[in-house]
Amino acid sequence: MMGSYRVRTDLALEATERFTEENVEIRGVEVKEDYNEEKDIRTTVVKIRTENGAKTMGRPQGNYITIEAPNLSVPDEDYHREVSEEVARHLRQLIDLDSDKSILVVGLGNQGITADSLGPHVVENMHMTRHIIREYGLKGLGEEKMHCTSGIIPGVMAQTGMETSEIVEGVVSEIKPDVVIAIDALAARSVKRLNRTIQITDTGIHPGSGVGNHRVGLTEENLQVKVIGIGVPTVVDAATIVHDSMAHLLDALEEAEQKEFLEEMIPPHLHSMFVTPKDVDETMKYLSFTISEGLNMAFAQN
Amino acid sequence: MMGSYRVRTDLALEATERFTEENVEIRGVEVKEDYNEEKDIRTTVVKIRTENGAKTMGRPQGNYITIEAPNLSVPDEDYHREVSEEVARHLRQLIDLDSDKSILVVGLGNQGITADSLGPHVVENMHMTRHIIREYGLKGLGEEKMHCTSGIIPGVMAQTGMETSEIVEGVVSEIKPDVVIAIDALAARSVKRLNRTIQITDTGIHPGSGVGNHRVGLTEENLQVKVIGIGVPTVVDAATIVHDSMAHLLDALEEAEQKEFLEEMIPPHLHSMFVTPKDVDETMKYLSFTISEGLNMAFAQN
Amino acid sequence: MMGSYRVRTDLALEATERFTEENVEIRGVEVKEDYNEEKDIRTTVVKIRTENGAKTMGRPQGNYITIEAPNLSVPDEDYHREVSEEVARHLRQLIDLDSDKSILVVGLGNQGITADSLGPHVVENMHMTRHIIREYGLKGLGEEKMHCTSGIIPGVMAQTGMETSEIVEGVVSEIKPDVVIAIDALAARSVKRLNRTIQITDTGIHPGSGVGNHRVGLTEENLQVKVIGIGVPTVVDAATIVHDSMAHLLDALEEAEQKEFLEEMIPPHLHSMFVTPKDVDETMKYLSFTISEGLNMAFAQN
Amino acid sequence: MMGSYRVRTDLALEATERFTEENVEIRGVEVKEDYNEEKDIRTTVVKIRTENGAKTMGRPQGNYITIEAPNLSVPDEDYHREVSEEVARHLRQLIDLDSDKSILVVGLGNQGITADSLGPHVVENMHMTRHIIREYGLKGLGEEKMHCTSGIIPGVMAQTGMETSEIVEGVVSEIKPDVVIAIDALAARSVKRLNRTIQITDTGIHPGSGVGNHRVGLTEENLQVKVIGIGVPTVVDAATIVHDSMAHLLDALEEAEQKEFLEEMIPPHLHSMFVTPKDVDETMKYLSFTISEGLNMAFAQN
Repeated sequence: MMGSYRVRTDLALEATERFTEENVEIRGVEVKEDYNEEKDIRTTVVKIRTENGAKTMGRPQGNYITIEAPNLSVPDEDYHREVSEEVARHLRQLIDLDSDKSILVVGLGNQGITADSLGPHVVENMHMTRHIIREYGLKGLGEEKMHCTSGIIPGVMAQTGMETSEIVEGVVSEIKPDVVIAIDALAARSVKRLNRTIQITDTGIHPGSGVGNHRVGLTEENLQVKVIGIGVPTVVDAATIVHDSMAHLLDALEEAEQKEFLEEMIPPHLHSMFVTPKDVDETMKYLSFTISEGLNMAFAQN
Repeated sequence: MMGSYRVRTDLALEATERFTEENVEIRGVEVKEDYNEEKDIRTTVVKIRTENGAKTMGRPQGNYITIEAPNLSVPDEDYHREVSEEVARHLRQLIDLDSDKSILVVGLGNQGITADSLGPHVVENMHMTRHIIREYGLKGLGEEKMHCTSGIIPGVMAQTGMETSEIVEGVVSEIKPDVVIAIDALAARSVKRLNRTIQITDTGIHPGSGVGNHRVGLTEENLQVKVIGIGVPTVVDAATIVHDSMAHLLDALEEAEQKEFLEEMIPPHLHSMFVTPKDVDETMKYLSFTISEGLNMAFAQN
Repeated sequence: MMGSYRVRTDLALEATERFTEENVEIRGVEVKEDYNEEKDIRTTVVKIRTENGAKTMGRPQGNYITIEAPNLSVPDEDYHREVSEEVARHLRQLIDLDSDKSILVVGLGNQGITADSLGPHVVENMHMTRHIIREYGLKGLGEEKMHCTSGIIPGVMAQTGMETSEIVEGVVSEIKPDVVIAIDALAARSVKRLNRTIQITDTGIHPGSGVGNHRVGLTEENLQVKVIGIGVPTVVDAATIVHDSMAHLLDALEEAEQKEFLEEMIPPHLHSMFVTPKDVDETMKYLSFTISEGLNMAFAQN
Repeated sequence: MMGSYRVRTDLALEATERFTEENVEIRGVEVKEDYNEEKDIRTTVVKIRTENGAKTMGRPQGNYITIEAPNLSVPDEDYHREVSEEVARHLRQLIDLDSDKSILVVGLGNQGITADSLGPHVVENMHMTRHIIREYGLKGLGEEKMHCTSGIIPGVMAQTGMETSEIVEGVVSEIKPDVVIAIDALAARSVKRLNRTIQITDTGIHPGSGVGNHRVGLTEENLQVKVIGIGVPTVVDAATIVHDSMAHLLDALEEAEQKEFLEEMIPPHLHSMFVTPKDVDETMKYLSFTISEGLNMAFAQN
């Protein structure tokens, strides 16, 4: 009902909810949900198949895998391993890892802001192999096959004076990886998804997404190489929460004529704020560890 | 009008606004405002003088000085010096610094959460003299008079397993300072006060205040020594923002009967979130520097 | 032969080597070595039994357990678990954990200096239970028995203006734990022991020990409560390395008359330097994790 | 006399000392010293003019400016400003700043190791303008002229799997700056130069230099753009200290025939250690601030 105001979400799953609530099937979009009851992990795959579907969904054609794992922000080692394996499984489907691949992991975000530090943490936790392979060769390492991993933490524009995409383009042109994996902290629409949802997509990172609101995307079009985006929602736009509450109130009051009024009431400064859980530092540790383990597993030689 | 819902604020100034909006004088409470136009610094002193005034205001008797300095989160060195001097001036009024004093500075908050890291940053920036005085003596240092400063960053309960107050009580019983100065990041009611307001009070730190919501206060009653609290609002309760927007809407709709309904609509999980500006890491640096300089100035020998 | 120059070591094991090299038995001192070949972990227990032995050894009466584990600075999870269990086993022998105990862990050292940050890291990694027990009680937690753990990172004197021991004394007088466990980074004499040796002692921490050279000890005498010290050598005194090399050279040259000359040649500024491995940040992570896991295991209810 | 063993130093000044001690003039090398007594700042300019001079000195042709400022590791704001101005002055001579320049600052080193974190700290402290100029244009900013500054912290190979030079080459090919300024922590030969000496050179950064021992250089030849290297010695090779002490001893003993023996005696593991002052974290702050202020001054529009 409040569809006129496009609330911000980086999760494709949440973008479908607008429609599924109304029992509408979106043409050109396929949604498949799978729930593993024992492990309490729900995986939803949204496939945007046509240009039309992309337009309706407000994001490019491609695959969007969302792993919802309620205990992700809790220190349960076994559970985290399950989720890491789920991440690895999907990556192996998106990237052909049968032959050796060179993979560049990009840790987007700002280390100085806890809620935006997911990407850097992931890169720090990963095992990089590129320099070892170059030093000793596969034979020297006693391996027949080994993926070549490297990583960069590009920083943010206020620190570097450069668009993140410029830095990554430069490194890609030098390193020539087969795949770029960009990790980023995302904005969700719903508070209940924070820190417990992982989105994996083969469409890369798009302008306006992420906690830091990237101005230029990291996509196959820009980088001339396949780009996988992995994100976890760690913030909700403050404006979204206000909007949702007010929309809910208005619905209840059946005051349909008040919508325009509502738009004007969201104070503009709220758009430069975010909402973040008070225990964000704890969960950040668990999350980054889980994703980096998933990457380590996916690219382990076997 | 929405007075039935007590929104959270750690600023005494904001607690008076409920009344001043309605042009009500609060019995037992004195408010004096001073605006320095040239420097663009507004200082408001709220004096709660009676038990009755304390009850109405929801906080203990004492002095609450609020320095509002709009450019505090901007890197302007001269402006910051002005504010530091203002802080120092008020401290000299609250603490009798004519004779040598021993001062323990307590940096409350969680270093791992940017918005809660004000206190630790302040302690890190300060010059401590206690160990130097004990080593060389005043004569050895060529000084006739010198305040003895020491500081502690007690951490938070999830890290230590102890109430912060327990740690501080222990250190106070050992060090026996004349004054404790507790620095903390606060919650404001209004987004526009974030990171540009400094509150100084001789009533210490009270239960339920601060970003981390202290469960036990740091007060003269508990510590048996004078306690000055210095705080800067760095967060606004997410629930407050929702509440304010909805109240504003309801007022406009003149739906007075909907108030009770409103209370029920604030989702409980919002109470464990906070709203924080996206550039919080930058401003944190400026703020902590400004306050620690104010302290350094106040306790410098002269 | 070079015995006239007392090189600095915080390891009791190294203090015995002076004598064992010369096949001398030290009266009042008992040394028992155990080597687990399969696990490649060597444990040496040095018991100083008499006042005379203490004098010869230059450290107080008590038990000194040294665990030498060559792979400790390598990321091998299984190996680290073995060492954690070894640490836990010895702690259970030193502390009677049959009845509930209240344990205060003190993370000594300077977080700002990588090689001195062991203690703080250990406290950060530990699970603290004190606040949970106080909140819910054992019955509420469904436990019959549970050790009560708390921790503090006291910082260093240049930051706090207080002796570390003053802070700890204050907290102990407030919390009244049954045992204090103080974790610290140590200085070794031999480069080959760095980051691969853990010393556990029931004599606490003594003046002049640790990377930061504590001026006052944390001992049962001072704190009126049992104190276990756990340390890992992370630095070697720069002067020691120079001394050893020169002594070795002199021995080879059979220039016995040059000893006095040697003492004068160690430049005094070297005493304010330390030698540290280039990969100290990596190993710090593994080590602190291993020790904190050992503590977690020891105090887990069972 | 001990010339056969090439001790490691990144300072050209120290490379000349071998010769000046012996009162030898080095052909093709010009050394000019200037001492400002009032300010207590000594500036030495070493110009390597010929291929022959480069061979003798073991480093490429070019200018090496060394600023020795004994109080650099002490918190004296005025003194630091003097040194910043000295740095700015030399940069203005090495770079033609009459017309607008685009400058990329590269912060080399490892943030996780205090002694190697100079470069990252400098980049963090600098004001970057590139994104602002691109956003608003010079006219929009009310400026006629403004240098365009950007910066990157490339990390180290163990974290990224890439040679630092690969990352920088990529970014340079994308950004196309006029000048690259690479900041790095260096190794000195003499303990007394640590943290009080700044070297500026127009020859860039060369393989084998820096605390982290770069394997590939950042030079005009590699990057196809002018490269200024700025470094501060923060470590001395542990092997150097041992070597120097032993050489000194041997000289005294007049045991010239023992030299070969000496080479064999430096334990190989020492080459993976470094010597660092115990207060390295404090001085790091002062140093990085001083250099970044020098850069800020040099590139400020005026």
